[in-house]
Amino acid sequence: MRGQQIGGGTVALFAGPCSVEGREMMLGIGEKVASFGASFLRGGAFKPRTSPYAFQGLGEEGLRCLAEAREATGLPVATELMDPRDIDLVGRYADVIQIGARNMQNFRLLTEVGRLDKPVILKRGMSATIVEWLMSAEYIASEGNRQIILCERGVRTFETATRNTFDVSAIPVLKSLSHLPVIADPSHATGKMSLVEPLAAAAIAAGADGVMVEVHHDPETALSDGPQSLRPEAFREMVGRLKGIAVAMGKKLGNA
Amino acid sequence: MRGQQIGGGTVALFAGPCSVEGREMMLGIGEKVASFGASFLRGGAFKPRTSPYAFQGLGEEGLRCLAEAREATGLPVATELMDPRDIDLVGRYADVIQIGARNMQNFRLLTEVGRLDKPVILKRGMSATIVEWLMSAEYIASEGNRQIILCERGVRTFETATRNTFDVSAIPVLKSLSHLPVIADPSHATGKMSLVEPLAAAAIAAGADGVMVEVHHDPETALSDGPQSLRPEAFREMVGRLKGIAVAMGKKLGNA
Amino acid sequence: MRGQQIGGGTVALFAGPCSVEGREMMLGIGEKVASFGASFLRGGAFKPRTSPYAFQGLGEEGLRCLAEAREATGLPVATELMDPRDIDLVGRYADVIQIGARNMQNFRLLTEVGRLDKPVILKRGMSATIVEWLMSAEYIASEGNRQIILCERGVRTFETATRNTFDVSAIPVLKSLSHLPVIADPSHATGKMSLVEPLAAAAIAAGADGVMVEVHHDPETALSDGPQSLRPEAFREMVGRLKGIAVAMGKKLGNA
Amino acid sequence: MRGQQIGGGTVALFAGPCSVEGREMMLGIGEKVASFGASFLRGGAFKPRTSPYAFQGLGEEGLRCLAEAREATGLPVATELMDPRDIDLVGRYADVIQIGARNMQNFRLLTEVGRLDKPVILKRGMSATIVEWLMSAEYIASEGNRQIILCERGVRTFETATRNTFDVSAIPVLKSLSHLPVIADPSHATGKMSLVEPLAAAAIAAGADGVMVEVHHDPETALSDGPQSLRPEAFREMVGRLKGIAVAMGKKLGNA
Repeated sequence: MRGQQIGGGTVALFAGPCSVEGREMMLGIGEKVASFGASFLRGGAFKPRTSPYAFQGLGEEGLRCLAEAREATGLPVATELMDPRDIDLVGRYADVIQIGARNMQNFRLLTEVGRLDKPVILKRGMSATIVEWLMSAEYIASEGNRQIILCERGVRTFETATRNTFDVSAIPVLKSLSHLPVIADPSHATGKMSLVEPLAAAAIAAGADGVMVEVHHDPETALSDGPQSLRPEAFREMVGRLKGIAVAMGKKLGNA
Repeated sequence: MRGQQIGGGTVALFAGPCSVEGREMMLGIGEKVASFGASFLRGGAFKPRTSPYAFQGLGEEGLRCLAEAREATGLPVATELMDPRDIDLVGRYADVIQIGARNMQNFRLLTEVGRLDKPVILKRGMSATIVEWLMSAEYIASEGNRQIILCERGVRTFETATRNTFDVSAIPVLKSLSHLPVIADPSHATGKMSLVEPLAAAAIAAGADGVMVEVHHDPETALSDGPQSLRPEAFREMVGRLKGIAVAMGKKLGNA
Repeated sequence: MRGQQIGGGTVALFAGPCSVEGREMMLGIGEKVASFGASFLRGGAFKPRTSPYAFQGLGEEGLRCLAEAREATGLPVATELMDPRDIDLVGRYADVIQIGARNMQNFRLLTEVGRLDKPVILKRGMSATIVEWLMSAEYIASEGNRQIILCERGVRTFETATRNTFDVSAIPVLKSLSHLPVIADPSHATGKMSLVEPLAAAAIAAGADGVMVEVHHDPETALSDGPQSLRPEAFREMVGRLKGIAVAMGKKLGNA
Repeated sequence: MRGQQIGGGTVALFAGPCSVEGREMMLGIGEKVASFGASFLRGGAFKPRTSPYAFQGLGEEGLRCLAEAREATGLPVATELMDPRDIDLVGRYADVIQIGARNMQNFRLLTEVGRLDKPVILKRGMSATIVEWLMSAEYIASEGNRQIILCERGVRTFETATRNTFDVSAIPVLKSLSHLPVIADPSHATGKMSLVEPLAAAAIAAGADGVMVEVHHDPETALSDGPQSLRPEAFREMVGRLKGIAVAMGKKLGNA
């Protein structure tokens, strides 16, 4: 969409802040990641947070900032939908709708996005099997929307060195069971900025059709997910190295 | 409520079918479990199912059957709410609102039930830590509703002999961290009727304030969860034996 | 053995320190737990420790202390074997041989204890399925030794509130698949002294044939597993309350 | 050793059958994988098997076949040690000693290989944290042997689409915590031949210093691990594609 591809010979590159924190911030990060090769912008306006006392997102104001970043960069934007009652609102601003891990089995929400004519990123639930994940995709597809992108973001295990355990095997397993594109989110999977690049590389080498990474101009002050966000410069360097892996797989990396 | 207790010196006894399948069925099972000592009726009208092609519940018709069973037995009824848009509808019929495991982090739904003046059963998510579970309870409490009942229903592990692994330790851990009543659902935890009684006994011995069990007049033909449902007669026998454990804990079991 | 039962109408009660730390200590704890109803003494002479720099046990000196405690109390003693080369040494002192969780699939060790004429406690591996556990028991039985006692001690999950997640369902599952007695170790399962009693009660209510608990005269200074050890007085009080659960199950608790 | 490298600019390539099944078989597979670029041969003579009734390996005869394959190919051989009593025997034949996942916390075995002057491959236990794994390495190093190679082979989770869940993040995490080389075993991690190549590629892209793959001339009749073994021709094709990933990482792949 908007000239950007997912699947085929391109590894899509989604980048942007975890949460949209304001207009300047979103425009600043958006323009930087676009110039470094991102093919989609990401940013959260409605944030599912474990605690009710944590920052919950800017809501519609955040959506407006995203739309402005789209105008400035020409790139399509992806953002999360949490509540079936927000579907018209979010649908007005987003090019790609994201369903978060905690909502992978929010069946009413899945049914609603199944009625849209817009791509949906369906993140894997924290303890969802691959079969359950595909069944959730089926909730969307059975309503008519077949533009579904599966996103591996790590599963919950006993290991504490990483926030979740990134299940790289899910990529080839899904490729053998389904025709849907599969992308990877190494930022949420690991929770650590130093692990984002090796996991993004691993995902591309395992056949992923895209990677989604969190980028923030100042991770120390981020309102959410700072420890796993890359600075724009680190993002640029990573893109340079990931290109080599994409080329070895016979693919192109985003707009890099 | 309606004269039935949760917490204190009583082990509440929730019983009924997984799904309400019809008027006769709900009344029949309701009257039997009431006569055998149940203190609350349960039954699903809106069912979250892994596959979109599985039985999804009777909706409002199911709620009316539940209300009729309440009139017939005098017992309060508990049923699941899945969608914030159904809150008025479900609230009109239910005495206790249940939030299912898959919705434990559906934060918008939690916020909505936080505004009700009705008890809410909050089931533990399949891979939720105890701390995350209490944070979800906080979403409800922070809106003003403090009538929260936590329900342990098993967590996801590598073990395949049971549908989930019932985390009996969660009961005393929650008792040490919170003042909220804690009940157990051995039917969903194990997925096997032969394991319901030993797990219900274990839960009571570990300090649970209630148990919730699925009862069906003909498990072989149940539209959902047959393999873990007890026949009414098996329920009666189980109640007889569980009374001894409750008494050893200095408590009374439901209305038995 | 030595007049003490496992299985049948008795819930065996194993108690003693995690590690034998000296003669006085072992005799002191042994006499106390015996007088409070324990039916078996436990204590480690060879300790498997995650770090090579942690206390590894007193070795043969520890075994001699155990033997002395047996003479003083008349109770049989259980202790762990870690190395096939120690089998004669440990066999000379122990009435019951324990195979620890980390060695559940140390097949050479299993084969060796399969040739003994002594009961063997086989602890469940930290991530062993019930089927794998029974297969490890088969390694012992296939060599001729059928005196096997299975011990549930918790499995590894994502939950961090407890050291492991005690799988209480394993008790009735094993009872349905095998004739072997099943005991529970709530001390290792939880790692917290406050959880030992509720889990011991749950295990007995679920049908366990015994419980094994760690008792130390001064948990703060214990050389291993202090935080999960009960003081002798707490052990006595716990025994008093567990008797009620055992009686509700139609059983006797140890020598209490 | 024998002119082959692990670490530095080379991705070591271990290949061979799960179990040595005979002289002809080992020589045949050994010569093929050597000609296709393998830099080390692997093959099991002592096999840890879940069931006592499964094939347990050829023992010393298997070691002799390995030694013959080494003479024929000039490549060093790696094989598993299960019992401290076999250390002299295995040490006489093997260039690299492998400690299997089930023995990662067999501390007596670790202490013994710590006294050897030979490289040791330490496989990760099925539910070992990264910290526990490094502590087991410490058991070896503290006895003097610092030639330790860590091997990620998947951890146990709830997912059933793969035999284990390959924890690709462990590779960069270990690189940040330790100087030891890290290799990956995608065959055991996945249990499926179709997933071996994508996971080997992912491991190399994440920074692994080597990969170990099972190769069998006729997987359908293999005495162990057939479903995850590659035919020699499939191995050759995989090596061709993996070279591109290694080159993108600035490395050489085995002798390919």
